[in-house]
Amino acid sequence: MTMVHAGWGDPSRRKGLPEPVVGWLAHKVGRGAAGEPAPVASVPPSRLTDAQLAALRGTGAEVDLSDEARVARAAGRSYLDLLALRSGTFDVPDAVVRPTADQVGAVLRTGVTVVPFGGGTSVVGGVAPLGETVVALDLSRLDRLVSLSEEDRTAVLEPGLTGPAAEALLNARGWTLGHFPQSFEHATIGGFAATRSAGQASTGYGRFDALVVAMTVETPVGRIDVGGSPTAAGPSLLQLFLGSEGALGVITSVTVRIKPLPEVKRYDAWLVSSWEEGIRQLRELEQSGVVPEVARLSDEDETATSLRLSAPRAVRALARGRCLLILGWEGSAASVKRRRTRMKGIPLPGAGDRWEHGRYDGPYLRDDLMDAGFLVETLETSASWSRLLDVHSAVRAALAAALGDCIVMCHVSHLYPHAASLYFTVLASGNKPWQPAKDAACQALLATGATITHHHAVGTDHRPWMRAEVGDLGVEVLRAVKQVVDPSGVLNPGKLIP
Amino acid sequence: MTMVHAGWGDPSRRKGLPEPVVGWLAHKVGRGAAGEPAPVASVPPSRLTDAQLAALRGTGAEVDLSDEARVARAAGRSYLDLLALRSGTFDVPDAVVRPTADQVGAVLRTGVTVVPFGGGTSVVGGVAPLGETVVALDLSRLDRLVSLSEEDRTAVLEPGLTGPAAEALLNARGWTLGHFPQSFEHATIGGFAATRSAGQASTGYGRFDALVVAMTVETPVGRIDVGGSPTAAGPSLLQLFLGSEGALGVITSVTVRIKPLPEVKRYDAWLVSSWEEGIRQLRELEQSGVVPEVARLSDEDETATSLRLSAPRAVRALARGRCLLILGWEGSAASVKRRRTRMKGIPLPGAGDRWEHGRYDGPYLRDDLMDAGFLVETLETSASWSRLLDVHSAVRAALAAALGDCIVMCHVSHLYPHAASLYFTVLASGNKPWQPAKDAACQALLATGATITHHHAVGTDHRPWMRAEVGDLGVEVLRAVKQVVDPSGVLNPGKLIP
Repeated sequence: MTMVHAGWGDPSRRKGLPEPVVGWLAHKVGRGAAGEPAPVASVPPSRLTDAQLAALRGTGAEVDLSDEARVARAAGRSYLDLLALRSGTFDVPDAVVRPTADQVGAVLRTGVTVVPFGGGTSVVGGVAPLGETVVALDLSRLDRLVSLSEEDRTAVLEPGLTGPAAEALLNARGWTLGHFPQSFEHATIGGFAATRSAGQASTGYGRFDALVVAMTVETPVGRIDVGGSPTAAGPSLLQLFLGSEGALGVITSVTVRIKPLPEVKRYDAWLVSSWEEGIRQLRELEQSGVVPEVARLSDEDETATSLRLSAPRAVRALARGRCLLILGWEGSAASVKRRRTRMKGIPLPGAGDRWEHGRYDGPYLRDDLMDAGFLVETLETSASWSRLLDVHSAVRAALAAALGDCIVMCHVSHLYPHAASLYFTVLASGNKPWQPAKDAACQALLATGATITHHHAVGTDHRPWMRAEVGDLGVEVLRAVKQVVDPSGVLNPGKLIP
Repeated sequence: MTMVHAGWGDPSRRKGLPEPVVGWLAHKVGRGAAGEPAPVASVPPSRLTDAQLAALRGTGAEVDLSDEARVARAAGRSYLDLLALRSGTFDVPDAVVRPTADQVGAVLRTGVTVVPFGGGTSVVGGVAPLGETVVALDLSRLDRLVSLSEEDRTAVLEPGLTGPAAEALLNARGWTLGHFPQSFEHATIGGFAATRSAGQASTGYGRFDALVVAMTVETPVGRIDVGGSPTAAGPSLLQLFLGSEGALGVITSVTVRIKPLPEVKRYDAWLVSSWEEGIRQLRELEQSGVVPEVARLSDEDETATSLRLSAPRAVRALARGRCLLILGWEGSAASVKRRRTRMKGIPLPGAGDRWEHGRYDGPYLRDDLMDAGFLVETLETSASWSRLLDVHSAVRAALAAALGDCIVMCHVSHLYPHAASLYFTVLASGNKPWQPAKDAACQALLATGATITHHHAVGTDHRPWMRAEVGDLGVEVLRAVKQVVDPSGVLNPGKLIP
């Protein structure tokens, strides 16, 4: 699947924003100049030396110096990425290198700096081409289902498989991975593992870092196999390379847990009386051990705004001050029947299915909003249940203080016995700068004991906050590991490790 | 709870071996000289210099130079440990240092080599006092339940709490940790975390490394807090310090998941038609998502031997060629009712409860067997379901080849969606050397793709196998991390990292 320049996916899937919605939003938060992305201007020539080019070609990997290939791997898809792409003020990698699985190690041993590149969907600067000379290491040729064990319920996947490609291969044999982040249609297996992705159904199927059983990782100094069956043989090296964001190696194989394709999918929705009440219900459900695949609770502002865009007036009136709660149940008919739970609230027939139908549409809506002159960005975190309300209030206050007029929406989207995630979406005028608001939100997260990122990873954007997140000694440990596996610093420089 | 010298726990709880059983075993495997442990002879004087002693005392920690204290912390409780303790040929630490939580960091900064010591129940040499001068860092004063959050279902425990002490503190407030390894009565919270312990109910409650949410670790270069709510902020440092066996720091606080005290406990037993059939049933149960707290399946030889020791003749006849399967269900009445599953086999009423009643008696039986002149040792592993039968066969063959006449018993004791554990118990004549048999078993494990240890950890005994387990690069990574947190090498030398 191709990704349009300076936007998301296939533009023909954009629905456009009705004028009344634009007017309503502009009235609420103001807006900047409307307009579409600028066409790509001239691309600087590759800085690769002849010797570097020869070394890369000598590995047998495809080396693509075309402007088109380089521009397509210039950036991820955060709001700031899109602003840069739209305005034409972005750096490009010096080449795109496409190895086979067998060639990855040789490419790393050329000494050329690489940015491992899967779907290019990072929203934290994870694929920014930093460094003097740097190539995008495109993993799209590593696209096989290597093996599948029905007995072990595991599959060995190559990292370049996109979400839909991996699911298609598994589905054809009756299995599913169950990993459906909003970026699903473009993001890749390697990216999921490198960033500790969480999907919309991760409450039930598990975060991606819980789905991975083993990995093979290529580094400039050699290959390492991590994980396997459960072990007490020391620290978990699997958990050291999960979330390593290309800075500690290139993931070339991922063994994942799989589940039978669900016989049944049920998405139920309710309006619950308040945010606090909804959180309490979700906590009790999760802690009872009866866990749905999907659990989402929108706060009052997200409920009102999302219904403003889609629901009839009568529903909007009913929803006033209430919160939309969606539970999704997937599995065998018996399993869904056994677990499916009625929550306390006003049932909203059809709303669960409507959410499921539009679950990958958010990034398209963002393109429409940006064209219309709005700032739109998301941030996410997790915190223990007992801190969740405080984190929610603190982030909202920080964003409002930084941005002035804005709409801050939030939903709970991943449940754990001791914690839950919060996912914020911010709408403001496109004239407002995002960075000060992001900084204020990050400070609020740290001050309230929440993590800097629940599933978007670190990249460049959260790197300044890593020291606060893991401590001085944690940073030293990560640096020492990097020094072992990447002594020359050729792996995704400027990301993850401060 | 005190631990007798050269044996286990409180000797008054030993039941003794009936003569017919001794005769039967001797007939099967032969036996060595019967006899009890030798009394402790003279203990060498402490090698601590005056300066070291002053430095240790300067931290405010208790420093105990008594023979009794030093001998009590000289060794763990493996068969080889017990042989050494019985014969009087063992090293002792040069002192026992008992800090408060606040004093641990200062002790580490004295530069004196330490062996962190909890319950002293290691069966892999984890507490052996290696090094020129070395003190046992006894954590028994770190024995508080620091806090408990009902909302988050977490508790902060100090590492020196034994299993029963931690459970008593939690139970008094209506909660349980649910971690019940065979060493439960003596082992400690810190030890569970440092060794990635698994308990008899870990199939349901989770391995200890899955129960830990966060830890505080003191190192010679400072304190590090790891873990928290679920995060995508890079590699998991929590999973790096879990299983670090005192070689990367001293765990001073462990935040664990807790569950409500079960209303109901049900232990069911069956005789199933074969080992293969029992494994198939357990795999299907686990993969269906209906997971019991306890799941144990004994192979034919373990079934026959354990029934030989306890069951009436009619039951033994019934069991011939069959396998004993026990499932334990704990939780709310509703949860147990919902999950409790009938397996295919001959129900054996009362056998589940009898297992539960004697669940901590194994080490006492071992003392009886050793007094009677038998070799008795255990080893354990895990492997993917598809490899389980091969691993079982290979380890049995390796042990039989090394030991000649012997009884090798095995049970499956921990289930995972993709894998299960195997726990072997070996009986032979006390005249036979154990080390060649252990080496042969380890080679068989590695050759069949099983892990070198599922829950006993590495210590000294598995250290020679770590390179095969984690690879050259894995060893380099662990060394680099150790160099950061323990540049002078004062933390539990000679353990874990080759």
